Amino acid sequence: MNSATHHEPPLNPDQAQMLAERCAEAMYARDPASQALGMRIVKIAPGFAALTMAVRADMLNGHATCHGGFIFSLADSAFAFACNSHNLVTVAAGCTIEFLAPAREGDVLTATGHERALAGRSGVYDIDVTNQHGATIAFFRGKSARIKGHVIETGHAE
Amino acid sequence: MNSATHHEPPLNPDQAQMLAERCAEAMYARDPASQALGMRIVKIAPGFAALTMAVRADMLNGHATCHGGFIFSLADSAFAFACNSHNLVTVAAGCTIEFLAPAREGDVLTATGHERALAGRSGVYDIDVTNQHGATIAFFRGKSARIKGHVIETGHAE
Amino acid sequence: MNSATHHEPPLNPDQAQMLAERCAEAMYARDPASQALGMRIVKIAPGFAALTMAVRADMLNGHATCHGGFIFSLADSAFAFACNSHNLVTVAAGCTIEFLAPAREGDVLTATGHERALAGRSGVYDIDVTNQHGATIAFFRGKSARIKGHVIETGHAE
Amino acid sequence: MNSATHHEPPLNPDQAQMLAERCAEAMYARDPASQALGMRIVKIAPGFAALTMAVRADMLNGHATCHGGFIFSLADSAFAFACNSHNLVTVAAGCTIEFLAPAREGDVLTATGHERALAGRSGVYDIDVTNQHGATIAFFRGKSARIKGHVIETGHAE
Repeated sequence: MNSATHHEPPLNPDQAQMLAERCAEAMYARDPASQALGMRIVKIAPGFAALTMAVRADMLNGHATCHGGFIFSLADSAFAFACNSHNLVTVAAGCTIEFLAPAREGDVLTATGHERALAGRSGVYDIDVTNQHGATIAFFRGKSARIKGHVIETGHAE
Repeated sequence: MNSATHHEPPLNPDQAQMLAERCAEAMYARDPASQALGMRIVKIAPGFAALTMAVRADMLNGHATCHGGFIFSLADSAFAFACNSHNLVTVAAGCTIEFLAPAREGDVLTATGHERALAGRSGVYDIDVTNQHGATIAFFRGKSARIKGHVIETGHAE
Repeated sequence: MNSATHHEPPLNPDQAQMLAERCAEAMYARDPASQALGMRIVKIAPGFAALTMAVRADMLNGHATCHGGFIFSLADSAFAFACNSHNLVTVAAGCTIEFLAPAREGDVLTATGHERALAGRSGVYDIDVTNQHGATIAFFRGKSARIKGHVIETGHAE
Repeated sequence: MNSATHHEPPLNPDQAQMLAERCAEAMYARDPASQALGMRIVKIAPGFAALTMAVRADMLNGHATCHGGFIFSLADSAFAFACNSHNLVTVAAGCTIEFLAPAREGDVLTATGHERALAGRSGVYDIDVTNQHGATIAFFRGKSARIKGHVIETGHAE
């Protein structure tokens, strides 16, 4: 029997990596928002995600720079992929973002994030957003809350 | 001579309201992001903005709820309209968002925000996001930084 | 039987107010930190607290202004009194503070805070810190997490 | 002539380290708050500071754990020493703190912080607070704002 309330058996590093990749693949497939924004998964590992997104004309705000919402969205998706990589459904409780430099049309942004802490059902993740020149665009910190359920069926239930 | 470095003459309430509306109109017209996300301006006043946005299928994440990035985007646009309402170009320095409840496809979200403080070039704005039932979806707090320039030409320069 | 896992019967406004006052009194009595910092409770209500603190010489930092930690402490205590006013033990999960103006020796600061949202075991509280002239010193936002237990025995258990 | 408005000549690593240490020494000497809380400077470098503080009985709150204000104070002092290490007077504009685990009487806390970004007059610093067992107590992120003046006289003025 596979139940969210039972502790999963510990995984070895290869299994944890495979599980993280399968979770990301499944989440991305059913995530119209990340797809529509042109995000691509660059790297996934347990508690880690790196995503890229190109800044399009329809992402610009009234100052002709990338609307902060899309920079946030990229970081938030990386946060989501990182915090769901253990196959336990996890949502954002709150986030902070510091904007360091503007992003412009055509820039390719990369959000790289990892787990800083995981205690009970709460976690803290730091995601940095950089552009194609390596300049920091934003720092994002996400607080996660685990809810019920698994991201994917793992077959432990048979 | 109209110069960003000179202090503007104080406006009476009617003038301030008219200026806020003209700034919002001009900003919205050149803001492809807010337009593409289907945001509509409901109300503008000096230091205040209310915007609505309907949650579309392409805004859903892997949990079938509205991607946090779009909730953030709506709040961030309300923040931008509120903090640029004095016709002084102002950008986001940093933001925090607390997610209280999920939003779902078809929900109509309203972000209502106002200026809490303005000291020198920095300001603090609180924006609340609610759904069509009046339930709170998120609390957003934005820290603004004024940069050079005006949102619109006011004709003081002739 | 009185148990933290059982729902409390709904209280009328007078009972809720009395409970909030008794919780604050009990918490203050066993809170050496708030006492040692000279904090005084000005007003308590369900989900609400107002506290004052005078800035002492030993609270100054290297810039001869009140160390941010003491401004935070005052806001954090108001947050604690507000979020424990329902007699359910609640702790801080995370906080943000924006510093608007410095406080100086002899200033009397007041932190006034109230509950913005309470959903399940999580809550959001906004606390504003002002000085004796009514100037805003800081905005504080606290995210609370309810844990097990009651602040005081209510006698429902007999 | 020594003026805060003139750019300082670039320092070599040894000079930058010596300057950081002299700034910290001068700041600590005139910082009654950090002294009264028993903080000790463990390590200073350009853009970096590590401080320790023992949790005393008068730092406990109504839950018999260290009042969040003192954990914040330790992190905030490390932030201050790190962001003033370049001898340019810098203050906190805003901070976020996530509390991961409680600290108890007798615990010796260490706040370790470094500069994540410095752009114009604004900077971002991350400070982690751990206890004597290496457990994470809190994550703190500080946003700095440079104001006028130097921390110490450097003798460039003669």
